[in-house]
Amino acid sequence: MIDKEFHLERPLRWGMVGGGRGSEIGYIHKNSALRDGLFTLVAAAFDVNPERGREFGRNLGVDESRLYDNYKEMFEKEAQREDGIEAVSIATPNFLHYEMATAALNAGLHVVCEKPLCFTVKEAEALRKLAIEKQRVFGVTYGYTGYPMVHQARKMIENGDLGEIRIINTQFAHGFSSGMSELTSANTRWRQDPKIAGPTYVIGDIGTHALFLAETMVPGLKIEKLLCSPDTFVKSRAPMEDNAVVLMKFTNGASGTLWASAVNAGSMHQQKIRVVGSKASIEWWDEYPNQLRYEIQGKPAQVLERGMDYLYLDDDMVNSFRIGGGHAEGLFDAWANLYRRFGTAMDRVNHGERVEDVMKDLWFPNVNDGVEGVRFVENCVRSRDQNSVWVDYQ
Amino acid sequence: MIDKEFHLERPLRWGMVGGGRGSEIGYIHKNSALRDGLFTLVAAAFDVNPERGREFGRNLGVDESRLYDNYKEMFEKEAQREDGIEAVSIATPNFLHYEMATAALNAGLHVVCEKPLCFTVKEAEALRKLAIEKQRVFGVTYGYTGYPMVHQARKMIENGDLGEIRIINTQFAHGFSSGMSELTSANTRWRQDPKIAGPTYVIGDIGTHALFLAETMVPGLKIEKLLCSPDTFVKSRAPMEDNAVVLMKFTNGASGTLWASAVNAGSMHQQKIRVVGSKASIEWWDEYPNQLRYEIQGKPAQVLERGMDYLYLDDDMVNSFRIGGGHAEGLFDAWANLYRRFGTAMDRVNHGERVEDVMKDLWFPNVNDGVEGVRFVENCVRSRDQNSVWVDYQ
Amino acid sequence: MIDKEFHLERPLRWGMVGGGRGSEIGYIHKNSALRDGLFTLVAAAFDVNPERGREFGRNLGVDESRLYDNYKEMFEKEAQREDGIEAVSIATPNFLHYEMATAALNAGLHVVCEKPLCFTVKEAEALRKLAIEKQRVFGVTYGYTGYPMVHQARKMIENGDLGEIRIINTQFAHGFSSGMSELTSANTRWRQDPKIAGPTYVIGDIGTHALFLAETMVPGLKIEKLLCSPDTFVKSRAPMEDNAVVLMKFTNGASGTLWASAVNAGSMHQQKIRVVGSKASIEWWDEYPNQLRYEIQGKPAQVLERGMDYLYLDDDMVNSFRIGGGHAEGLFDAWANLYRRFGTAMDRVNHGERVEDVMKDLWFPNVNDGVEGVRFVENCVRSRDQNSVWVDYQ
Amino acid sequence: MIDKEFHLERPLRWGMVGGGRGSEIGYIHKNSALRDGLFTLVAAAFDVNPERGREFGRNLGVDESRLYDNYKEMFEKEAQREDGIEAVSIATPNFLHYEMATAALNAGLHVVCEKPLCFTVKEAEALRKLAIEKQRVFGVTYGYTGYPMVHQARKMIENGDLGEIRIINTQFAHGFSSGMSELTSANTRWRQDPKIAGPTYVIGDIGTHALFLAETMVPGLKIEKLLCSPDTFVKSRAPMEDNAVVLMKFTNGASGTLWASAVNAGSMHQQKIRVVGSKASIEWWDEYPNQLRYEIQGKPAQVLERGMDYLYLDDDMVNSFRIGGGHAEGLFDAWANLYRRFGTAMDRVNHGERVEDVMKDLWFPNVNDGVEGVRFVENCVRSRDQNSVWVDYQ
Repeated sequence: MIDKEFHLERPLRWGMVGGGRGSEIGYIHKNSALRDGLFTLVAAAFDVNPERGREFGRNLGVDESRLYDNYKEMFEKEAQREDGIEAVSIATPNFLHYEMATAALNAGLHVVCEKPLCFTVKEAEALRKLAIEKQRVFGVTYGYTGYPMVHQARKMIENGDLGEIRIINTQFAHGFSSGMSELTSANTRWRQDPKIAGPTYVIGDIGTHALFLAETMVPGLKIEKLLCSPDTFVKSRAPMEDNAVVLMKFTNGASGTLWASAVNAGSMHQQKIRVVGSKASIEWWDEYPNQLRYEIQGKPAQVLERGMDYLYLDDDMVNSFRIGGGHAEGLFDAWANLYRRFGTAMDRVNHGERVEDVMKDLWFPNVNDGVEGVRFVENCVRSRDQNSVWVDYQ
Repeated sequence: MIDKEFHLERPLRWGMVGGGRGSEIGYIHKNSALRDGLFTLVAAAFDVNPERGREFGRNLGVDESRLYDNYKEMFEKEAQREDGIEAVSIATPNFLHYEMATAALNAGLHVVCEKPLCFTVKEAEALRKLAIEKQRVFGVTYGYTGYPMVHQARKMIENGDLGEIRIINTQFAHGFSSGMSELTSANTRWRQDPKIAGPTYVIGDIGTHALFLAETMVPGLKIEKLLCSPDTFVKSRAPMEDNAVVLMKFTNGASGTLWASAVNAGSMHQQKIRVVGSKASIEWWDEYPNQLRYEIQGKPAQVLERGMDYLYLDDDMVNSFRIGGGHAEGLFDAWANLYRRFGTAMDRVNHGERVEDVMKDLWFPNVNDGVEGVRFVENCVRSRDQNSVWVDYQ
Repeated sequence: MIDKEFHLERPLRWGMVGGGRGSEIGYIHKNSALRDGLFTLVAAAFDVNPERGREFGRNLGVDESRLYDNYKEMFEKEAQREDGIEAVSIATPNFLHYEMATAALNAGLHVVCEKPLCFTVKEAEALRKLAIEKQRVFGVTYGYTGYPMVHQARKMIENGDLGEIRIINTQFAHGFSSGMSELTSANTRWRQDPKIAGPTYVIGDIGTHALFLAETMVPGLKIEKLLCSPDTFVKSRAPMEDNAVVLMKFTNGASGTLWASAVNAGSMHQQKIRVVGSKASIEWWDEYPNQLRYEIQGKPAQVLERGMDYLYLDDDMVNSFRIGGGHAEGLFDAWANLYRRFGTAMDRVNHGERVEDVMKDLWFPNVNDGVEGVRFVENCVRSRDQNSVWVDYQ
Repeated sequence: MIDKEFHLERPLRWGMVGGGRGSEIGYIHKNSALRDGLFTLVAAAFDVNPERGREFGRNLGVDESRLYDNYKEMFEKEAQREDGIEAVSIATPNFLHYEMATAALNAGLHVVCEKPLCFTVKEAEALRKLAIEKQRVFGVTYGYTGYPMVHQARKMIENGDLGEIRIINTQFAHGFSSGMSELTSANTRWRQDPKIAGPTYVIGDIGTHALFLAETMVPGLKIEKLLCSPDTFVKSRAPMEDNAVVLMKFTNGASGTLWASAVNAGSMHQQKIRVVGSKASIEWWDEYPNQLRYEIQGKPAQVLERGMDYLYLDDDMVNSFRIGGGHAEGLFDAWANLYRRFGTAMDRVNHGERVEDVMKDLWFPNVNDGVEGVRFVENCVRSRDQNSVWVDYQ
């Protein structure tokens, strides 16, 4: 069970860029950061429309004087205050992540950034270098990996409960863009625009979630080569893909598939992962996140439930839980688990630890994971652009 | 979608009694009240051990001077402050609810109280009378009814989608006390002690949740007669029951069963409800709260998903949702939905509306619902004490 | 795995009464008896309309001369043949079972009879007495108990895997008569006519299946007292009930509920059973008959699959299976398992064993089980007729 | 509902090659052929061990004089009889199919053959040519396609209920060879031996089932190009693969994946298919064959149940069912549906119809489907042998 009295000496002073009125992602960032008292929201540049952003901030109770027109103004003005922000979350469309994250690090801020960090590995590496140089924590909101049962799976795999890992099939395949949802949803529209979203649609948007889920469950997982086979079923979306299958060969000898889709008609998320070992398999589905299916070859399949004593319980905050078994935890709880870790990491660095050491010691989706997401997209694009051949992973 | 900018003129000043260190119920009260910014926690008497309670409160950031030894001191001292609490949540074992809630109302506070309100209908009626007399909001934390799909079911039934209601089978039947869990769990122990828990174990502890779920889904539901058949499978628990089936005949001609159990070995909650009408049935399970099964006779069964456009969407806050479909919401979200309603009701009464009018206009588990829970237990006891005969509901 | 070469010295000469054109139950009797080569169909009186029955029989390849106008003629004429039938199956509406089964036994035939055997315990006891006196096998087609996983459950319970049995909840609650299906379905109509169906509708028609499922899984189960609470939701069916809940106290200290319904709108069968012990529970559902859920308190729930090595495998034919795990077996296979046992029992008696000994040694739904089904209905009626009070089981 | 009086003028005289003692596949062939009275088993060469085969045949009641040492003798001797066999089923290991099927056709017999027909497309085409030339029916036992819900899916797709077909993901991925099962199971051993099984293990053994399931559901489906990515996780099996993913592009613009595996630890069959259209998707799983999930984008998911009136009901025998909804049908019923069609086709050809016309008019897995299975394997091998590149489908 999560330590419900866990607290920092004092909460971290925290600001937001983006995530204003009507933003679902902003809402969950805010809920998660504030959930456990590790952060207080003291400043924001919520909106490209400054007035609308300010009104939004006032409603949240943020001091009027710290509601800024844009991130540049915020970083500058906050830096001049004794009680200026120490950390910032970036919840804007993709194309802004790189410049904002760079500016935030340069302003000496810890950063929590939406994925993808940026559009090229070169940029991503620059962000990593900068974060280390500035000794700032850089968290990436791969929110689904905050679910405790994902970490139960990770520990089972680490512990060898599955034997040698052979097959990893991971997918995030919703159906919400089966029709031309971009005509009515601004949120869908920008994700299909390469200038705003980056070089891919579903691969970057949701495929990277499916990949990071696999990377979290299987520690040390590295792709050796891959092949990306994309489709554009709604033709007007070309050259952006709305469906893709990626075949992967991993350095540990395992094989894998990743299916990302926005045209899997009638499905909700279908974000599912199955990891197959020589002795057993596990299967997890984000729509039913409190259960983990564990299938030992030759034995009855088991359904493990969050919150039970038979799980691997330890001091690891994410692997723990907020309420007893049987009760449902949801995505807000998963995200709060991540922010709890982000805050803990920031506090440790604030108290003098090297950020590299904290990253080794405390699991959280960090800048390295962000870089790997960008790298995956870049390799997929490279395969795609050669008519879906196998490419060595670079 | 829930209005994410919903806010009060100012948050309500709120205190807690009980719910200190190690309390799961206290944790969820606190998380829920603070979630949407309608309440601020400014005072508390967290613990029978005042020092432990104070330390706990300090960790939460409550002002030392407002961490009290007990509820009496808190109510008295807070009443003397300009900025004293306006609302209090009571999260103590059952036997204290009545005296604390009475004192709180007499101190002019809005009250959120754990169920059961008290041990007798007479006391419950006294609380109701007092709440109306004092014009205070009295909320009861039947937390599961905060789940949006429960309200989708309610609207479907109101709308006649099921036809005439014929059968209501509701249950909360866990297995956590299959063995003598009371030997190791203090939390289980007091629930089996009639002096602390009241005249029943599972009927009051979890059966009332299953009942209120039915009452919420089927508006206007009233029991005409019932029969209670209890068991004590772990003999040392006698005369308290650890399993019970209640048969009910309702005034609308429907029949029902309620199964409450703590010895349903291997089950998690098994809090499930099935409502059968002349045309269709619905089924909902709190372990998978984002789905609602809808079965029209002669048609394929349907699985309704939280967050989708095809649901009955309206201005009703609880029927709405915090994040899009496919994502999982959990119990913390459900409770937050209730506290959002409690806060809204309190604010409306603070602004001059009669509490009776607010209770008619805004659904929330209120003092009437609390009274009905106590009445159910009392009627069950009456049947039980006559060897499980049918009794007219009084 | 079932012994696929199992055979008798020679197949039994077998006839049918009822089960002609359009009869679903006749079809399954025939499929099951012929499946494993233990029976050959040589004579029949298929239909109340003799000509239609003869045409039906010809289509099946039965010798014209052995297609009879009615059962009396068949029993008489066949008795005069050297190669006359040795066994007969009775697949007519309920009110005919008693006279036909009596006549068959008196004609020296082994009998397979649909449930209920008759309308009163007195008649049922007379049939039992006659079967023993005539030393004839009397099988009753409680078809669902032919499913292998039912016997896996039985063996687990016998073996103590669940601990002491505490709770048995069994149900068969379909929705096919939610509307006035009797207006269009002759099959439904006669089941609601007390002259043809007996004193109850759903209790006898499907409730006895749910009861026998419980009796099969829990060896030695005996009811001590019961209470029957029926409903007639479609008023024109009165006094026949279309829904009923029966509470039971068993002699072993366990409690139980049985739910029988024809108005459980939108459900298919909902024939389910949950047996709860002090250590674990099992749950089985006839719509997914190849799986058995096994839940040990404090452990992950397990899903046992038919056909796997980890099951209790023995020489018992029914507990065995016809094809490997993963493949689905269905109701025809379950029934064939029963007929295989009926045929085996008949062959053993034909070879000189006492029928009482065979009944002890070889599980099959026999005349005793048929008597118990009638007894259950009679006790339910007794409770019902006293306004649903508890009655001692007689 | 299937026509339960359906019968031929006289049953077809039928023989078997292989499928003797201990053969699971032989058992199901026999059960299925005899189920509906379209065939009588009158001759066989059951076993490579003639004496064991004869003993087995005697137990089944086959006339001693028609139990042969081998297929050659059987075809020769039966041809000399007035009442010789008209049809033969071949249930031997793969490498014998070609020579036996060729001999059977040359002997003027209708043939039912296990898949794969042979090892090369050239041979397969020769069989097709011979079958047409001899005007004999050639059925292939893709048994899973006998399930009624597969044909409900086919009709929904034909009818446009899914819109344009975009994605077809099909799989058969069991875990029974996760360990070295070949050491203990002869049945597994020969399937991994290229001389007996052909050039692939899982692709041919189970992948072709998954392919034909897709071909059955989506009429007119043709592969344009494919890429086969195999793995050999148990190294001693090399060069045979025990896991493979095949990517496919179809001529209708759809994309697909096929996953075949024998090392999917802990899974039973995992033979599942999901067909995604522009408007809706369907999903079917052979372990729960009586249900079909139908997901219309933007609507609640539906669960269609076998046996219900809302299905596409027509005169088509396979799309129909043997017992009402709620009851489970299983693999034996599915196979019997196929044999019913094989028998019908043979009878029609016996009565003078051209076999090409019958194949157009009556769906059954026929020689063309057998050829396509072999072609699929050959194309997979071609891709595999070039390091898993895309190959144009030939």
